[in-house]
Amino acid sequence: MHEVKVIKNKYITIKNRIDHRAPNESDFIISEETISLNHDKVVVFVKNLYVSIDPYQINRMKTHSCSQQILPNTAAILPGQAIDAGGVGRVVKSTHPDFKTGDLVTGLLHWGEYSVIEGGRTLEKLDPKLDLPLSYYAGGVLGSSGLTAYGGFFEICKPKKGEKVFVTAASGSVGMLVGQYAKLFGCYVVGSAGSKQKVDLLKEKLGFDDAFNYKEETDINSTLQRYFPNGIDIYFDNVGGEMLEAAIENMNIFGRVAACGAISEYTDNMKKAKPDMIAVIYKRIKIEGFLSVDFMDIHEDFITTTVHHLQTGKMQAIEDISYGVESIPTAFVDLFRGNNIGKTVVQITKE
Amino acid sequence: MHEVKVIKNKYITIKNRIDHRAPNESDFIISEETISLNHDKVVVFVKNLYVSIDPYQINRMKTHSCSQQILPNTAAILPGQAIDAGGVGRVVKSTHPDFKTGDLVTGLLHWGEYSVIEGGRTLEKLDPKLDLPLSYYAGGVLGSSGLTAYGGFFEICKPKKGEKVFVTAASGSVGMLVGQYAKLFGCYVVGSAGSKQKVDLLKEKLGFDDAFNYKEETDINSTLQRYFPNGIDIYFDNVGGEMLEAAIENMNIFGRVAACGAISEYTDNMKKAKPDMIAVIYKRIKIEGFLSVDFMDIHEDFITTTVHHLQTGKMQAIEDISYGVESIPTAFVDLFRGNNIGKTVVQITKE
Repeated sequence: MHEVKVIKNKYITIKNRIDHRAPNESDFIISEETISLNHDKVVVFVKNLYVSIDPYQINRMKTHSCSQQILPNTAAILPGQAIDAGGVGRVVKSTHPDFKTGDLVTGLLHWGEYSVIEGGRTLEKLDPKLDLPLSYYAGGVLGSSGLTAYGGFFEICKPKKGEKVFVTAASGSVGMLVGQYAKLFGCYVVGSAGSKQKVDLLKEKLGFDDAFNYKEETDINSTLQRYFPNGIDIYFDNVGGEMLEAAIENMNIFGRVAACGAISEYTDNMKKAKPDMIAVIYKRIKIEGFLSVDFMDIHEDFITTTVHHLQTGKMQAIEDISYGVESIPTAFVDLFRGNNIGKTVVQITKE
Repeated sequence: MHEVKVIKNKYITIKNRIDHRAPNESDFIISEETISLNHDKVVVFVKNLYVSIDPYQINRMKTHSCSQQILPNTAAILPGQAIDAGGVGRVVKSTHPDFKTGDLVTGLLHWGEYSVIEGGRTLEKLDPKLDLPLSYYAGGVLGSSGLTAYGGFFEICKPKKGEKVFVTAASGSVGMLVGQYAKLFGCYVVGSAGSKQKVDLLKEKLGFDDAFNYKEETDINSTLQRYFPNGIDIYFDNVGGEMLEAAIENMNIFGRVAACGAISEYTDNMKKAKPDMIAVIYKRIKIEGFLSVDFMDIHEDFITTTVHHLQTGKMQAIEDISYGVESIPTAFVDLFRGNNIGKTVVQITKE
């Protein structure tokens, strides 16, 4: 086989910072570059197969967000720069002793056709379990969304059987898994989503006890009273804003809020929640933020449990897959338009 | 000794509900009644010595507050009704087998000269330690304020030595104790209060590392940056509102907010805090409400530790004592005017 010395790479960048508004396709550019595979540093060249598309990336695209100081994979994304994201790929060439050509890898890749990973630190070899799809590891049910849902529900919410659980963005990548873990554990689960199709999915396919379309509700506070006549014990928050306020209003004593996401606040900082602190105090409510990286000590548990649930058909992983690097901007923008169902992934290429 | 059959009692009631505004003296009435000491039920008649004056009582005086459904001692206070509050008194007569004439008791008494406690359930006999003042047990350093501070700081904040602690209403009944527990434990403590006199007290008498007068600050966010250049690890919140927002803005990762009170929101529900949930998530901040009743399992620890600190002079309990049942309305109203320093107690009578 003739060894390739250069490869052409298409990748996505932002044209400008995106501050306190929803992103548009016009905020993105598809750039092209030629990558030399001859390199004197320790580098892993990866051909991307699947990349993850997640709402939190919008915080990285702002001029300022407190999130940007926290972790390397929440750092600022600058115009012109390749955008890193969870993904799965195949090693094309490697000068790193742990990786060789042909290895399947997962970790932080780029929104593009290829990823050049200096040092290889953020990668690990992937030995996919049985016949589960590779895409599941690209920030999906066996990647960060799964770990977020599993760790967030079990470690942050500390559920007891029979407790009443409310999940927002319930048909999204994390919400759909939280609801299923909660049902399998023995909780009563109600989800909120933004369309009839999503609500039907939650009730008919994902086993939620009930679900509603928040866009059809005029007073979320009374909606929650209707769905939780005996109060909410656990609120898994993916949206923030007035939903968080209403959940606290309807929460039982010693209720827990897992603060996982605040998508309604990401693109509009006027929508910040004003939770009733008097209720927080008297009802002894706990509101706790978390990130999936905090759960690395339960990662093995998470994988074992989740693979078993998937293989026995007890758990479903809904994916919203589009194809080709060109589809990344729309896939991302659609998250904020509520057009996605399940985990959004872009398949960059078929092998 | 001739046995008294009836006693005249003066007690305080509210004239009307007090909704979302600061209370005034004119909201209160001093009522008079004649109590017959002949009773066919199980009753303990108590002559009140000290009663506790606490800001949270305002929530009981509202037409509606979620707090009113939580516990008997947070239930609604109705116009015309006697107002229960922590206190210390002497049993005048008792048909309860556990109490006899002359016993010192503590528990829920009334804002008045006498308390008629049916069933006696909320009382316990008081065996005061050594030469510490009786007033300390009337919701003070050895009563609910102390337990709130001790449990809130150690159980909710879970401090580590060297951590940076911020306390608001720091010269108030709970705040002054939190700061001292935190210093004795080995934390760095900054308090906020509303006058130079209070700030001086914190720094000069109570051992706070630093303190500031929030009324002299125009931008609380930059104030906190100045006092905590390396960030806040623990925020003991007694005030809510914009102070809570600024504390979260200046908090380190894995910071904890002990939600103890929200006095700025009690009397003005337009002042609700809008904490940045994106910061809560990424910094993995925990905000937790609590009440002193949750700490009954550490009550003995609390008493032993605190009595030792007081007797060895390591801890100071500042009290703001006024005299006579007539002074109760002003003592209460003054809490919302910031006129109190330390724990507000009314001494009803001298024995």
